[in-house]
Amino acid sequence: MNCELMTTKELIMLPGPVNVDHNVLLAMGTAMFNHRGPKFFRLYAEVKEKLRKLLNTKGEVYFITGSGTAGNEFAAANLVSPHEKVVVCSNGFFAERLCDTYKLIGAQVVEVRSEWGKGINLSELKEKVEGASLVALVFNETSTGVLNQVRNVAEIAHKAGALCVVDNVSGIGNAYEMDPWGIDVTVIATQKGIAAPPGMAFVAFSEKAREKALKTPKRSLYFNLEWYEKSAKENSTPATPAISIVYALNKALDLIFDEGIEKFVKRHYLNAEALRRGVEALGLKLFAEKELASNTVTAIALDGKAKDVVKTMDEKFGVVVAPGMGAYRDNMIRIGHMGRVDEKDIISTLSALELSLKINGLLKRPLGSGVNAALEFYAQNS
Amino acid sequence: MNCELMTTKELIMLPGPVNVDHNVLLAMGTAMFNHRGPKFFRLYAEVKEKLRKLLNTKGEVYFITGSGTAGNEFAAANLVSPHEKVVVCSNGFFAERLCDTYKLIGAQVVEVRSEWGKGINLSELKEKVEGASLVALVFNETSTGVLNQVRNVAEIAHKAGALCVVDNVSGIGNAYEMDPWGIDVTVIATQKGIAAPPGMAFVAFSEKAREKALKTPKRSLYFNLEWYEKSAKENSTPATPAISIVYALNKALDLIFDEGIEKFVKRHYLNAEALRRGVEALGLKLFAEKELASNTVTAIALDGKAKDVVKTMDEKFGVVVAPGMGAYRDNMIRIGHMGRVDEKDIISTLSALELSLKINGLLKRPLGSGVNAALEFYAQNS
Repeated sequence: MNCELMTTKELIMLPGPVNVDHNVLLAMGTAMFNHRGPKFFRLYAEVKEKLRKLLNTKGEVYFITGSGTAGNEFAAANLVSPHEKVVVCSNGFFAERLCDTYKLIGAQVVEVRSEWGKGINLSELKEKVEGASLVALVFNETSTGVLNQVRNVAEIAHKAGALCVVDNVSGIGNAYEMDPWGIDVTVIATQKGIAAPPGMAFVAFSEKAREKALKTPKRSLYFNLEWYEKSAKENSTPATPAISIVYALNKALDLIFDEGIEKFVKRHYLNAEALRRGVEALGLKLFAEKELASNTVTAIALDGKAKDVVKTMDEKFGVVVAPGMGAYRDNMIRIGHMGRVDEKDIISTLSALELSLKINGLLKRPLGSGVNAALEFYAQNS
Repeated sequence: MNCELMTTKELIMLPGPVNVDHNVLLAMGTAMFNHRGPKFFRLYAEVKEKLRKLLNTKGEVYFITGSGTAGNEFAAANLVSPHEKVVVCSNGFFAERLCDTYKLIGAQVVEVRSEWGKGINLSELKEKVEGASLVALVFNETSTGVLNQVRNVAEIAHKAGALCVVDNVSGIGNAYEMDPWGIDVTVIATQKGIAAPPGMAFVAFSEKAREKALKTPKRSLYFNLEWYEKSAKENSTPATPAISIVYALNKALDLIFDEGIEKFVKRHYLNAEALRRGVEALGLKLFAEKELASNTVTAIALDGKAKDVVKTMDEKFGVVVAPGMGAYRDNMIRIGHMGRVDEKDIISTLSALELSLKINGLLKRPLGSGVNAALEFYAQNS
């Protein structure tokens, strides 16, 4: 198998993994070294501070070699004892995965369900939260493009004496203020909004959450916070970390701070809004409730043929987007617009979407309607 | 922090991570792509076949994003129910970590202990194995350079109706025949003998082990074989894999097969033996029993000052080796000679060792004794 070194004509507009900047890919070419020596300790300390700044937290950040799911299991395994009541707010595929994670570790999971595309049912949450020690939810639901109201959920959780644990794996690119919003635990991963390659998850714990974690009996070594805690004191991990991925992440975080977090979030908003305007101008329906539309993922509702459109976009125009998940596999197109995405990418994506809708006999408006609406929006906001 | 792109004057002679070939590092520069599409499916299928060939097994191989410890927990979590009796053969640091892993998942762990540096006590194993469903051990004990008698252990385990699970994280470079030797489960990782960067573990299951795993109640999603099983059918992983690391691994495996496995193992043997001859010619004691000396790691016993010697070797001569682990931290030097290590590296390491012993007032033989003995051995065996 040949490698395609750092270049591709494909435009990756997936809800992760995302296009990774050449400088970030190159950082992985860094020669291997001892992860039990000063060079790694410095890298660890540097990355930890940057992640704290990114999430706006003073909490401890644990480095887990694994995917975002591993990060969520790390949080769950350290905070919940078997039979403890946990509320999971569920309105998408990754919330369902959170349920599975908590159920399998033995928690008594109570779900606050709402339809995919809709927000969390906060009044139902208020009713069900009593006696729960933890409320878990997904910030940006990758399967629907819904950005959940984590701030409100955290308030409700705290009133009931429960911790609020947030899966923020695909949410970077939206404003997120862990400490000011009272989030107790945040799980992130390298491969989405930060735009580094996949391979590492990071879990930030507030002091309150950390104290609970230190008291919770453990049933896993790999997900044992105490084990990580010992190494964290010397800026290291207990098992071998994915050194190259940490290097890449460090570079990717630099790119974010070079841009500035405010500008970074605003760019994401503008691109998301331009895309949404374009999609609506094509007479298509956005899947997520308008007031919960995310800056990083947009889901478009289609009645069937979504897989065909996704295929045409990829094969004919080199624009890679995703179909829906679960029951929506053929009834939804999901577009990721996180990381290094700019205006050119949004316009290219809308162009490919329009042409692919036409090829599949689904274009309802004159060709160019989507692109024009997006251009109009950019013109008003530049 | 600056990156040091693919070049370093440091010679990494650690028991992992190891020096990674430039072509392997470069493979990580491959542009990001959809891990739910044909490109990744092909990569997965290719890597899986190569790993089967490397281990000599027809079994299923699961791809775990994580360290070797994650691979060991994957095996444990899928094979053992709480209170089930597990025997762990323990003669080093990583065997102790195996014990922790099995204890934390709730197994009733019975240890067959022998001194660090000594082999497994097979007669004690025979006595203790009754009623156990599983015997776990480390093939190459990274903390001592002992290569354990996995073949004998597998025989004893099978006679008692138990599965034999082998941690082979640092053993690649020694002959290893999973199916012929009757090993039920093998855990490996990218960053040691295969000489790729760290970040992925791989767990090979025999059909018998897989069947037991499918029947074992699960208490983890991330380490749930059934979850991986569904994705494995389409050559994919259930959570996002470390794509760049899989690419690097694929290239690193090519380098092994280009050399040929037999030659690859023989090269490791020759380098290990040359190093051992050099060490003994310096009047130093090898820590591992002679008949159990590994091709990939050599531990040298010192009475104190090991940390000073390690420091001098690194700081004055750019040769990075490791001190001992646990109680042996200052009484042992550990040298890794796996991956792409050649004669030049062994001679360089011995030179740095001799000079550093001299600087620290520990050289007992004339300078050059170690290097000469190694040269002599190479001359006889080239």
